[in-house]
Amino acid sequence: MRMDINCDMGESFGSYRIGDDDRIIAFITSANIACGYHAGDPQVMAKTVALARQHRVSIGAHPGYPDLMGYGRRNLETFPGEISNYILYQIGALAAFARAAGVTLQHVKPHGALYNQAARDERVAREVIHAVKAYDPELILFMLAGSLCEEMATSAGLRVAREAFPDRAYLSSGQLAPRSMPGAVLDDPARVRDRVVKLATTGMLTSIEGKEMNFKADTLCIHGDTPGAWKLAAEIHGALEENGIKILPVDHCL
Amino acid sequence: MRMDINCDMGESFGSYRIGDDDRIIAFITSANIACGYHAGDPQVMAKTVALARQHRVSIGAHPGYPDLMGYGRRNLETFPGEISNYILYQIGALAAFARAAGVTLQHVKPHGALYNQAARDERVAREVIHAVKAYDPELILFMLAGSLCEEMATSAGLRVAREAFPDRAYLSSGQLAPRSMPGAVLDDPARVRDRVVKLATTGMLTSIEGKEMNFKADTLCIHGDTPGAWKLAAEIHGALEENGIKILPVDHCL
Amino acid sequence: MRMDINCDMGESFGSYRIGDDDRIIAFITSANIACGYHAGDPQVMAKTVALARQHRVSIGAHPGYPDLMGYGRRNLETFPGEISNYILYQIGALAAFARAAGVTLQHVKPHGALYNQAARDERVAREVIHAVKAYDPELILFMLAGSLCEEMATSAGLRVAREAFPDRAYLSSGQLAPRSMPGAVLDDPARVRDRVVKLATTGMLTSIEGKEMNFKADTLCIHGDTPGAWKLAAEIHGALEENGIKILPVDHCL
Amino acid sequence: MRMDINCDMGESFGSYRIGDDDRIIAFITSANIACGYHAGDPQVMAKTVALARQHRVSIGAHPGYPDLMGYGRRNLETFPGEISNYILYQIGALAAFARAAGVTLQHVKPHGALYNQAARDERVAREVIHAVKAYDPELILFMLAGSLCEEMATSAGLRVAREAFPDRAYLSSGQLAPRSMPGAVLDDPARVRDRVVKLATTGMLTSIEGKEMNFKADTLCIHGDTPGAWKLAAEIHGALEENGIKILPVDHCL
Repeated sequence: MRMDINCDMGESFGSYRIGDDDRIIAFITSANIACGYHAGDPQVMAKTVALARQHRVSIGAHPGYPDLMGYGRRNLETFPGEISNYILYQIGALAAFARAAGVTLQHVKPHGALYNQAARDERVAREVIHAVKAYDPELILFMLAGSLCEEMATSAGLRVAREAFPDRAYLSSGQLAPRSMPGAVLDDPARVRDRVVKLATTGMLTSIEGKEMNFKADTLCIHGDTPGAWKLAAEIHGALEENGIKILPVDHCL
Repeated sequence: MRMDINCDMGESFGSYRIGDDDRIIAFITSANIACGYHAGDPQVMAKTVALARQHRVSIGAHPGYPDLMGYGRRNLETFPGEISNYILYQIGALAAFARAAGVTLQHVKPHGALYNQAARDERVAREVIHAVKAYDPELILFMLAGSLCEEMATSAGLRVAREAFPDRAYLSSGQLAPRSMPGAVLDDPARVRDRVVKLATTGMLTSIEGKEMNFKADTLCIHGDTPGAWKLAAEIHGALEENGIKILPVDHCL
Repeated sequence: MRMDINCDMGESFGSYRIGDDDRIIAFITSANIACGYHAGDPQVMAKTVALARQHRVSIGAHPGYPDLMGYGRRNLETFPGEISNYILYQIGALAAFARAAGVTLQHVKPHGALYNQAARDERVAREVIHAVKAYDPELILFMLAGSLCEEMATSAGLRVAREAFPDRAYLSSGQLAPRSMPGAVLDDPARVRDRVVKLATTGMLTSIEGKEMNFKADTLCIHGDTPGAWKLAAEIHGALEENGIKILPVDHCL
Repeated sequence: MRMDINCDMGESFGSYRIGDDDRIIAFITSANIACGYHAGDPQVMAKTVALARQHRVSIGAHPGYPDLMGYGRRNLETFPGEISNYILYQIGALAAFARAAGVTLQHVKPHGALYNQAARDERVAREVIHAVKAYDPELILFMLAGSLCEEMATSAGLRVAREAFPDRAYLSSGQLAPRSMPGAVLDDPARVRDRVVKLATTGMLTSIEGKEMNFKADTLCIHGDTPGAWKLAAEIHGALEENGIKILPVDHCL
């Protein structure tokens, strides 16, 4: 019984601060580090890689659309090949800081609109997979559990870390319950604890409609930019540990 | 007798075109490829790496200040460490495209204001050298022949390609004659031919004041953004070839 | 019988050049000047306003999406209100250069993806109209003749200049024939001349299917970034003049 | 006895938050609103203008260098005319939001490196003054009391609001004591209160060396991006009010 905990990190930019990296880092095993397109800058990247290294947290690239103003959360029309090139660019940029710090990249997790589009749009998924494989076929792709992209990446021979969101409810179909649905976001830490323990020990999850379902997840996502995220991370970390689940970088969980 | 010919490449951006890369590529052996800060974008980088690979031209990163509006030609105040991080970021970004194309980086040549500042400012030179070594101590640094940075980089154990400008006159001190000086820029192709042949075969150059001086150069720079640059490249290439000088990527010249 | 001829201008950026403004300016009566989002920068804007003023060409703002890399040609998801604010920002920026030069803005013409979306998407159209009215209800909106946005803007009390594309064929429905359709782009200058004269003198156009139809246009668009655009501008200008059509800024045509 | 209190506002960008505008707005009379170059974006600008309008706080443009990554705090080399054009662009952009909200611009205050350079560098000062006059000679320029730029702007016929920093010590020369000097930054609210009351009622200030000196100031600057800035603003506001000094937009103080 093993589980990875990941969080987006290094999303500050210049004088602007987002996230509580210094606190959250203690409770996670994989850091998705922004690469300067939707967030992050070279100084922030260097610092965040150093922070992760110091805490023995594995490092991944967190590429997004070139849209700092929209924080990578807006869909952007792209022409064929552009997404692959955006991702290659950002993986490489982060890899340079990893290399200078003597560590290697474990994974790639697309950000925001790019993640959501990859999860369900075949062309976007193909470009994401192409970029990751072209850079290094050993890299692990973090992707929404049960998504089209998870399936395509697995078929393409990539290692995929299936991602679950501990503070979000799921439909019986296995898909995320839309935020607009009552109960879609779980606020009660006790319930979140119960769910992650159950998920990690049994591979089961109760859907929002009350159905028990199989749900395979390799990594749990903490949303670093919500206030108090570090507390949720601490809760989840504590719950898993108390129940004998080994919390390890995803490279040791697949 | 060997000589490298280098040129800045991939400095287009989006719909904007600069340079005559498709023509010049035939006459050079090292391409300095812009990395998206002062010029270039992921699509242009991918395309330029492919072009260089196809012509068996060696590839280098051409990092600049984050100043697209100023084309990297303006000095920018930086705080300690920023320059190193800017350069790491850009080397890594380009290296990703090289890696995806199955080639490796040969060198790094700073661009514009960053090059000029590195040549004479100790702090800037130190940051440039630090970044190149931190990324890969085997990378070759292209630097103004006779500059402070050349000296510092050599002392630091880096391989340095000493760069000469075939269409520029030099002072007897070995420094570039300032552009404001009459005769500082050579317009006559025949004179440029004579100079590069003499430089490559004898290691001597006549200064603007008429003095014969020793001048060690490993690579000749073509300014790709001046109109007709490909013709000058062809002239220089022809002159060297006719005089039995091997034109090779700088990795084979050091 | 009057007609305006407009062209996008000031789309250079930093060291990057696009368009042949110095030549085309002689043949147009309205200049759509880029405002620094999809193209243009403060230096280019100041210079382009001065050029237009010198040639007594009326000035308009040419706002686009904040996407220099995509030249404003890609759809960008926006949240309610963002488009209005993007347009206000850009109108104001250009208006400052007009004010410093002692001239006033005549019109606003959205660029690229923003223009195309405004033409057919009600929410985008509403935001465009809102921004123009909020800035100055006397400003003229340049919009695709026969589009949803033309109709909405007219209903909202804005003055609208209905725009025709002299080098493009139209369907019998009055809509532009898609570029993918054979014959959609007219290459033959003689045909373009005939069409614009007929349009200006009779208000009729022959559709790509051969049908004669009423077509009201107040301004003809020259695509400044196609090579040889100035020649087409000269042709059109000559044809209109020879046929007694007054070529005037659109403010005098409505 | 009148005094204006000003603060930089609207320096958030996209998802990034800086400053405590909603709290500080209650204690100031002039808002310097960022214009999208060093900070701010169209959404933030619209919202900040609305906030100022609602609180009857006068509005000014707060232009900076085009350096979001450096928050406009780094010197940037510029070519002649660039600074004027940068400022015109930014004033115009903000003026559009003011116009849409039915208010007018009261003033211009350069930001960060641009402010500091204008204060002491003749060329920069000249370009700042030129831009403000070219846009609207009635605009008030906020500038460091006792600086070269204050003098030049006054000679040029501009109205100048002489700015004092209530939490900073001054040398007997009238210049700001450098931050590196012990005692340069005043942490004790009681001392700050005493100083501003004395300054506003007597036009005198005690220098860091203990000398009493004349010091004319029309506006007091609150640094909005320091934590707890709103408390200092409240302290100063309270102190002035209790001592019978009218706190009014600077337009009413000159």
